[in-house]
Amino acid sequence: MTATEYVQQAIAELDWQREPRGLYEPIGYTLSAGGKRLRPSLAVIASDMFDGKREEVLPAALALEVFHNFTLLHDDVMDKASVRRGRPTVHVRWNENTAILSGDQMLIEAYSLLSKVRADVLPEVLRLFNKMATEICEGQQYDVDFETRDDVQIEDYMMMIRLKTSVLLANALQTGALIAGAGEADQTALYNYGIETGLAFQLQDDLLDVYGNPETFGKATGGDILCAKKTFMLLTAMQSASDRERNLLSRLLADKSMDSQEKIAAVTEIYTGLNVRQACEEEMKKHTDIALAELDKLSVSSEKKLILIKLAEKLLARKE
Amino acid sequence: MTATEYVQQAIAELDWQREPRGLYEPIGYTLSAGGKRLRPSLAVIASDMFDGKREEVLPAALALEVFHNFTLLHDDVMDKASVRRGRPTVHVRWNENTAILSGDQMLIEAYSLLSKVRADVLPEVLRLFNKMATEICEGQQYDVDFETRDDVQIEDYMMMIRLKTSVLLANALQTGALIAGAGEADQTALYNYGIETGLAFQLQDDLLDVYGNPETFGKATGGDILCAKKTFMLLTAMQSASDRERNLLSRLLADKSMDSQEKIAAVTEIYTGLNVRQACEEEMKKHTDIALAELDKLSVSSEKKLILIKLAEKLLARKE
Repeated sequence: MTATEYVQQAIAELDWQREPRGLYEPIGYTLSAGGKRLRPSLAVIASDMFDGKREEVLPAALALEVFHNFTLLHDDVMDKASVRRGRPTVHVRWNENTAILSGDQMLIEAYSLLSKVRADVLPEVLRLFNKMATEICEGQQYDVDFETRDDVQIEDYMMMIRLKTSVLLANALQTGALIAGAGEADQTALYNYGIETGLAFQLQDDLLDVYGNPETFGKATGGDILCAKKTFMLLTAMQSASDRERNLLSRLLADKSMDSQEKIAAVTEIYTGLNVRQACEEEMKKHTDIALAELDKLSVSSEKKLILIKLAEKLLARKE
Repeated sequence: MTATEYVQQAIAELDWQREPRGLYEPIGYTLSAGGKRLRPSLAVIASDMFDGKREEVLPAALALEVFHNFTLLHDDVMDKASVRRGRPTVHVRWNENTAILSGDQMLIEAYSLLSKVRADVLPEVLRLFNKMATEICEGQQYDVDFETRDDVQIEDYMMMIRLKTSVLLANALQTGALIAGAGEADQTALYNYGIETGLAFQLQDDLLDVYGNPETFGKATGGDILCAKKTFMLLTAMQSASDRERNLLSRLLADKSMDSQEKIAAVTEIYTGLNVRQACEEEMKKHTDIALAELDKLSVSSEKKLILIKLAEKLLARKE
């Protein structure tokens, strides 16, 4: 059984038929929506690499998936998003208070699952989990702060996506390895692989939001342009633009009366003229190369590394 | 130094001057508002009873205070409450998204503090904390559910306030004793004392909401009557009323056009005629007596029990 099949089965077996229904039904609804189950899979993959027992890493793997879905649930409230994975979000299907309280309970459930890991590794697993969870909240706050700041630099953006996206993947890998008994150097290499792969993945997401094919990308493109999100793409364009282009870009992004498709087309044309796509692809490659170099450091056989090499390639092979 | 002075000092020393300010400033604001610091004090009192080291119980005590304030912060969002301890609530002073995200971070901070307890007791402390936190969310959901249910019984109400109020006091006492090395029987007796004292305390709060003096009660009276909250007072009145009185009471509570003070006076008169106050005082006494009987079971000297006997008396001595 693959790691993903293993965690998918375990997620399906979690029992949310508890009382009061108003608290637990939205949790079951959220977790049944599917998704790649990437984070718990990474924990099991890391454990497999060090010949760990899958049932010993499972509670932590499940905690990561429940935690990830908790962040999506509360983020959707804060973003007033109405659809998630093709279904109404919890605050739309129920109401905002339900989304807040059931989300809180999901965070507690994540810790309840985590508390089931072996006692000898529990203090360290818990410490790393708390650090990761804190960084994700910090990343979310920076993301909000950047919306109204006009001095955001590319390095600020990279710091923010590291916190908001990368640390969860990195924690999943490190935690899986730690429970399986891996040493510190191996844990660190896997953590760093997770950080760098996460950065490359988020950069590609930003790129596909501009140049992607809506059908294969899975969502409409141009969303970041319409909300003037300060992504790597926009910040790079601003940095390399002439004064004239920078003014034009600023006016385009601030224009509230302009037709959406026209705005997307005009901004994309500027990006293309400034070679922003190429710059983003180079940055992605840089982080992917670092990720693969971290795998080289691992004290396991090449065959065992293959799954993470392929995963990095697969995550980054999403085409326009 | 008393237990309360000890925890007050430690709470004041917590550092919330961290970045991003938008995440941590509301946490510092919330925790600086004061309050009785009852829950962390109970943890230290229980530890003192078993000659525990205060610095060893402190992380769990602080976790309880941060957790309690997290519940208040999110409850205030859900209740749309604008004032807490005489100051604007976080969602009023900042905004709702800030209250959600900073609240989430407070819950994570509670677990970060908790993770610092001694490794040999951490698994059990964490397990008990998760159970308590889950019960509090369940209690909050039942509280919401009861607003729109018309079949709520007195025992349902007692179950709800046990979850929403008592388990946190009970957990504080048990956790303090556990970290100090108390045996299971002592832990259970303290837990039960906390449950019963919490019930008596909440019943008194309900009673004072009807018969209290607003100046000494600390808030306006009649709030439960105006929102037709199904408290012990109302449920007892409904149970002992004649059909005629029951209809009158229902009509009064549902009347949206009636003057508030007139409504409070009319409902209070019905309560008085039905001896609801006496019934509530008897129920309070019942739970206080059980609480004191639990203290009898403790394997510590009478002198060491005195502080909890006095605390129960003090909590319940709030007069109209």
